[in-house]
Amino acid sequence: MASNTRTVRPQTADSSNALGWQPLRGSDSPPLVEQLVQHCQQLLGNHSLRAGTRMPSVRQLADSAGVSRDTVVQAYDRLVALGLLHSRPGAGFFVSTQRRLHAPSTPEMPSLSAGQAFDTPFLLRSMFRSHGQVQFDGSTGLLPQSWMDHDMLNAAVRAVGRSAGMQLLGYGEPQGYAPLRQQISAMLLAQGLQIDPELELMTVTGVTQGMDLILRSTLRAGDAVLVEDPAWFMVFGLLRALGVQVLPVPRLRDGPDLEVLERLARAHRPKLLITNTVVHNPTGFGLSLPVAYDVLRLAEQHNFLILEDDTYADFVPQPMRLATLDRLRRVLLIGGFSKTLAGSLRVGYVAAQPERIRALTDAKLLSGLTSPELGERVVHRILADGQYRKHVQRLRERVDTARQRCLKLVENMGLVVHQEPLAGMFIWADAGRDTEVLARQMAAQGVLLAPGVLFSANQQGSTMLRLPVSIIDSDISLLLNEPRMWLFPLK
Amino acid sequence: MASNTRTVRPQTADSSNALGWQPLRGSDSPPLVEQLVQHCQQLLGNHSLRAGTRMPSVRQLADSAGVSRDTVVQAYDRLVALGLLHSRPGAGFFVSTQRRLHAPSTPEMPSLSAGQAFDTPFLLRSMFRSHGQVQFDGSTGLLPQSWMDHDMLNAAVRAVGRSAGMQLLGYGEPQGYAPLRQQISAMLLAQGLQIDPELELMTVTGVTQGMDLILRSTLRAGDAVLVEDPAWFMVFGLLRALGVQVLPVPRLRDGPDLEVLERLARAHRPKLLITNTVVHNPTGFGLSLPVAYDVLRLAEQHNFLILEDDTYADFVPQPMRLATLDRLRRVLLIGGFSKTLAGSLRVGYVAAQPERIRALTDAKLLSGLTSPELGERVVHRILADGQYRKHVQRLRERVDTARQRCLKLVENMGLVVHQEPLAGMFIWADAGRDTEVLARQMAAQGVLLAPGVLFSANQQGSTMLRLPVSIIDSDISLLLNEPRMWLFPLK
Repeated sequence: MASNTRTVRPQTADSSNALGWQPLRGSDSPPLVEQLVQHCQQLLGNHSLRAGTRMPSVRQLADSAGVSRDTVVQAYDRLVALGLLHSRPGAGFFVSTQRRLHAPSTPEMPSLSAGQAFDTPFLLRSMFRSHGQVQFDGSTGLLPQSWMDHDMLNAAVRAVGRSAGMQLLGYGEPQGYAPLRQQISAMLLAQGLQIDPELELMTVTGVTQGMDLILRSTLRAGDAVLVEDPAWFMVFGLLRALGVQVLPVPRLRDGPDLEVLERLARAHRPKLLITNTVVHNPTGFGLSLPVAYDVLRLAEQHNFLILEDDTYADFVPQPMRLATLDRLRRVLLIGGFSKTLAGSLRVGYVAAQPERIRALTDAKLLSGLTSPELGERVVHRILADGQYRKHVQRLRERVDTARQRCLKLVENMGLVVHQEPLAGMFIWADAGRDTEVLARQMAAQGVLLAPGVLFSANQQGSTMLRLPVSIIDSDISLLLNEPRMWLFPLK
Repeated sequence: MASNTRTVRPQTADSSNALGWQPLRGSDSPPLVEQLVQHCQQLLGNHSLRAGTRMPSVRQLADSAGVSRDTVVQAYDRLVALGLLHSRPGAGFFVSTQRRLHAPSTPEMPSLSAGQAFDTPFLLRSMFRSHGQVQFDGSTGLLPQSWMDHDMLNAAVRAVGRSAGMQLLGYGEPQGYAPLRQQISAMLLAQGLQIDPELELMTVTGVTQGMDLILRSTLRAGDAVLVEDPAWFMVFGLLRALGVQVLPVPRLRDGPDLEVLERLARAHRPKLLITNTVVHNPTGFGLSLPVAYDVLRLAEQHNFLILEDDTYADFVPQPMRLATLDRLRRVLLIGGFSKTLAGSLRVGYVAAQPERIRALTDAKLLSGLTSPELGERVVHRILADGQYRKHVQRLRERVDTARQRCLKLVENMGLVVHQEPLAGMFIWADAGRDTEVLARQMAAQGVLLAPGVLFSANQQGSTMLRLPVSIIDSDISLLLNEPRMWLFPLK
């Protein structure tokens, strides 16, 4: 009878060796869960385990391999998450039928045919393509990772994970995490700008979202908008998408060209001026007090609003803002932490009059509810601990030193800087030839540059080039210093 | 000579008692840095320290209080971050002149005057107001925090903080964190939908952003759009902002009303159908296979696209999607993790044809560059560890049980459920009277409800009410069970 009972047990693999798995047990072996997942992936990959097959039960496999049941459960769970197994309640785990797992393919570098425009979407795609074939990326607006403080950032992430409790579960506040707004208003107050964090401040998912929300709420197709020339290419992309009329105002060392500004304001009744006052991108120019006053006077006379983009403000010790003079009467101020903390956090802010913040918060709700509180808590922690001020000071000193060295390098390369930048991470240099052609040819060699055409309101051909000062820390600086490198594109 | 030297030293407070600070040293005392910050805040608050005063030097204060210099430095840094002090390099720390720190004010509950419309922006504002005066919030689409797994979430946040290294510093990928896209495609594959995570999938900052991007890329003012009636109120808000023509299609238990759908499609040549197929909000209805087939056939015949909103799909074990039948030919699928993991993470996705994903990624870049990678890494970790499947199963069981109990409660309350929901966290009940009036009166008592008018394509008065099934876990269920509660609003 006893022997009979044995023969009617369900057919299973020899339970002393289910799946043929022999765990490695050395102290430097991979964790058991990982070993088991990999072993199963192999069996699935070489079709030793076929679709529909029932996997050994958790108990069976645990006993045969001499591991805990928890190890097997965790491994099976991961295989389910990978789509390789599925579970049927009460029946066990089965090999899935459809199991085409895409191997991560290498995204292609965006290519640009000769006839194609070197426009905003193209540059955006290039900025964000895989870096496999790129030796040096001089088109990005971020500092090198090695200049940033990732330890500070990661410690803040862990601290948020320890302290957040249940608070991340909800949607958060549409206006943004209140303690972060408190910290931002304290930071702005120390720089002379007094705002109420409850009424006059909101967070956004990065400066770009802030600009998108303001432009969409303020402008309609056909409206006229004053824009500095040159300016951040994203501005032109956003304005083109809205179908508005762009009125370029030359950017001088002390601010926008007042004569042109007045003439255009008189002739076209613009709704808005978009300006990058403190550390202008791409020139590194600033804003003088008398020009600031005149810009505000013209805004008053001709009744236009001012969008003040403050992205690079932390690269000067005491920024001079239109918002401070104007007390947010006509100015909407945008700032953020991508340049000083981390691009991927996507934490920025808008400061404006209470009724404008209310309208923008409604627009933010409609276009994505709240902004992610996790990143806002990380930034809050770094600001509240008082680490931010010191970090920014160190970063500023490094950028300033690099800029001085880079100015010499650029001169050696035969480029001309017509007016030296006052601050910031860019040098705006004249290459004496069409930089779009240059950029295309350099791109083929894995060196990405930001040619002047991108920063031009009318996308006019240009001999100007925006170079990041971090170039002096890269291997490419040697290459760029080599005159033949610069002769090559002339061929 | 020695005594003379003493007298010319700069005037400082008695160094044995600088700032009069006596640190508490018990094991249950607050950290020293915190004590010092609070002490200084008190002195600043009662004007014992006046604007412009130089603070004791770090060494001086550290010595006098018997604490480390690091403690003083950290405390001063925090006070600088709060805008209360500023530092002058080489000269020390000074009390700031402008130091109006805004006390956190209590945001007011948004009030609604009788004449004002109970529209999308109002409901959105209400959903996100401070919960101070709210006893029960039945207007939100999130489950109670106690039903969610905040330990799992916070552990994943900490793990990301330990492992991310330098990788958070950049902007991340415009299409979204690649390993998360791999996991999402594996999850969808297990449910029968095969997509290429490199070409057919992108992440978004929550389902709402996905919808906003798709609607803005697909529609122009004046276009006709088919929308289920009732539907998620946000859809109407977004469509109104775009100035499109809304064509309501009644939502039946098996899907959209096919007869109306065909008539409207024939008459108005719509560009798009927006549908909430799996676990419809607010009704909890589903989609049958034959109706799904006919919807796709009509889309083919009349050449419209389909935006399939999959927000609540995880509340059924095996979701039946239009996207699966259609293989993304005409369907753009949106999903996310707000309902099952955490609202504030803002992690969602769009699956669509490669050329649509490319266009949407360009639109995403323009409206905010990338989505925040931090939250995407947190979701990735939870999916990759295989915890998500079990968590969702537990949550589903809890929701299903609650829904059954809630249906009885609702019946006891005298409300009528015309057709029972098939799944999900809502009950769509008929109160037999105008629920907008009811909702206003209940709101005055701190109970927020979502009246039918909000879910109506034409914002028509309605006797319907959307109740969250979590109501059975709240104190308010006792109150609601009390017939007088429901009589009161009739007054």
